[in-house]
Amino acid sequence: MHLCKSVAFMILGVVVAGCATVANVDREKQTLLGVDREWARVASEGKDVERIVSFWSDDATIIAPGAPILRGKEAIRNFVQQSLAIPGFHITWRSEEASISSDGTLGYTIGENAMTIPGQDGKMVTVKGRGIAVWRRGPTGEWKCVLDIWNSGP
Amino acid sequence: MHLCKSVAFMILGVVVAGCATVANVDREKQTLLGVDREWARVASEGKDVERIVSFWSDDATIIAPGAPILRGKEAIRNFVQQSLAIPGFHITWRSEEASISSDGTLGYTIGENAMTIPGQDGKMVTVKGRGIAVWRRGPTGEWKCVLDIWNSGP
Repeated sequence: MHLCKSVAFMILGVVVAGCATVANVDREKQTLLGVDREWARVASEGKDVERIVSFWSDDATIIAPGAPILRGKEAIRNFVQQSLAIPGFHITWRSEEASISSDGTLGYTIGENAMTIPGQDGKMVTVKGRGIAVWRRGPTGEWKCVLDIWNSGP
Repeated sequence: MHLCKSVAFMILGVVVAGCATVANVDREKQTLLGVDREWARVASEGKDVERIVSFWSDDATIIAPGAPILRGKEAIRNFVQQSLAIPGFHITWRSEEASISSDGTLGYTIGENAMTIPGQDGKMVTVKGRGIAVWRRGPTGEWKCVLDIWNSGP
């Protein structure tokens, strides 16, 4: 029976490795919210383009209101650079909710945002909005934003 | 060794049952796109409120541009009823992309939409937009939309 036990443990080992993507959902939700908050902090500082851009996946999509759909890191980097180059530009957001798949490979956050930009008369205006970010957790366990969309409220 | 084999197969049986949520990702993507297209067809007909509403989960959220966030089936049913009651109202959308988690429990679709509504001068206008829907697949295997958000392009 010792051999049986060995075989059993070997198989269990393979199983655990094979099911390794099955996540502790609550813990991963908190991790995802934490990543999103760190991203919001860095973005509201508005200084480190590369760090801000690093939260998106290489193939990420941004669907911003009134703008063409952006796809891929290069387009996103330009978008961030151009936004930060606007004098007085400021962005902030806070996600209160995160939801993820049972295996912890896909998730989304819902949040409220505020963007300060020049209005039509040149004066700065703060536009409030609501948005969602869709996230993927890669093989290294890191969450990356793959899709970003928002709009303005009433 | 026969006993060992029996133990091994028993364990494998438990494993397969435990990993049963791991999905055929490509097949589920096509299923999800199919569900979304059927929803779009029913919505563009604009006749059957209950059928249109049935594609959302009971706890679904709608984040429509310029409107308060809607949560739950009752709020969504009112929203659909009020929209369909507008003379000349028409909605259509088409999702070309679907993406799902490895275990097939969570997914999203990206699509383009067009909504015909009365403009400020009372004449009907068609507003084009882009949106995403987040979907959950329940224990019965049915995909339900849990989150809906869109905005207008340039």
